[in-house]
Amino acid sequence: MTPTITAFERSPDRGKGQARDMRVRWALEEVGQPYDVRLVSFSEMKQAAHRALHPFGQIPTYEEGDLVLFESGAIVFHIAQHHAGLLPGDANARARAITWMFCALSTLEPPIVDRQYAVLQERDETWYTQRLPIVEDRIRVRLGELSARLGDADWLDGAFSAGDLLMVTVLRRLNGSGLLDEYPKLFAYVARGEARPAFKRAFDAQLAVFTAASTGR
Amino acid sequence: MTPTITAFERSPDRGKGQARDMRVRWALEEVGQPYDVRLVSFSEMKQAAHRALHPFGQIPTYEEGDLVLFESGAIVFHIAQHHAGLLPGDANARARAITWMFCALSTLEPPIVDRQYAVLQERDETWYTQRLPIVEDRIRVRLGELSARLGDADWLDGAFSAGDLLMVTVLRRLNGSGLLDEYPKLFAYVARGEARPAFKRAFDAQLAVFTAASTGR
Repeated sequence: MTPTITAFERSPDRGKGQARDMRVRWALEEVGQPYDVRLVSFSEMKQAAHRALHPFGQIPTYEEGDLVLFESGAIVFHIAQHHAGLLPGDANARARAITWMFCALSTLEPPIVDRQYAVLQERDETWYTQRLPIVEDRIRVRLGELSARLGDADWLDGAFSAGDLLMVTVLRRLNGSGLLDEYPKLFAYVARGEARPAFKRAFDAQLAVFTAASTGR
Repeated sequence: MTPTITAFERSPDRGKGQARDMRVRWALEEVGQPYDVRLVSFSEMKQAAHRALHPFGQIPTYEEGDLVLFESGAIVFHIAQHHAGLLPGDANARARAITWMFCALSTLEPPIVDRQYAVLQERDETWYTQRLPIVEDRIRVRLGELSARLGDADWLDGAFSAGDLLMVTVLRRLNGSGLLDEYPKLFAYVARGEARPAFKRAFDAQLAVFTAASTGR
């Protein structure tokens, strides 16, 4: 059965692939599962029909027969559990890969999202220039620790996994901030993720949506 | 094999059960799995020996034979996967319960932690009183949406699950803020979680650590 995901009709990142549908598209491409996409506008996202799928009025959602899921992490996990290629077969290695999934979303993403809130919503506040370095230093602490753990390895724990997939998409939210450039090992790690053919196919698919919306097609 | 978890030698919440070891203790109590606890000080947490277990120098960790895990969400998931009682057997219901696990940690916890950062680390900044209401309004949006989805149900999706366990512990981090009182359904939901015998056993165990540390025993 072909699953259907939702994505922004017009992504606020202008096709840079930082919206959370990118994670789900990438996971589906890694495992070779075709999918349909239903685009939703910002106003549709907040209406009852969409909230029945996603209580917080966001994207992505995932529909497959009777099953409806939200939360990009949970959707990627569902895909990884039902297809080979995103989680190791060995039980302990699998538990560690799942740990990196939670780590990407619980430990790395929150301070990175906090920075985006500051830049997007608090830019005109009197405290903006004074507080931004505090927020960025919190991110640096996490990046330094992550870089130390990654070391010279290609991926966080053995072969590429759903943990790396989520971590790369979380770190990509720093694009344009300059912060990732301070950690060459993480910069190279993100580049390795972006070089995967499945990433490129997913990226091109979400970019095509933005391009079509922009040109009115 | 009895697993060993780590917890604060002296919890900064003074035994209120808001530290992340509480989630793991509660999950272990729900499934009836005995466990050992190794207490770590703040300085030990940041040293190489502990960072080998937890790259970000935090608690809790989980050791079981050769397996080492960190991230409370991943540890609770591991426990739920290997014991009955925290995830439904039906595949779709199980995927939805896992969605609520990710939701608790990715959608609800970040703004709640942001408020704790503000209160603990930015209280003396000039912007504190002006910015706090902004942060609290972000939390209110999420609480309102969660309350609407919960409605008059006891738990988020059918029977109590690991998703409820994580959600209740995340909402408990609002204790003392007054915010939860604005959402009677969520207030009652948290109280239902706290009334579970397994919660009480876990709470008492972490409180005993703090009490012992305080009285010098």
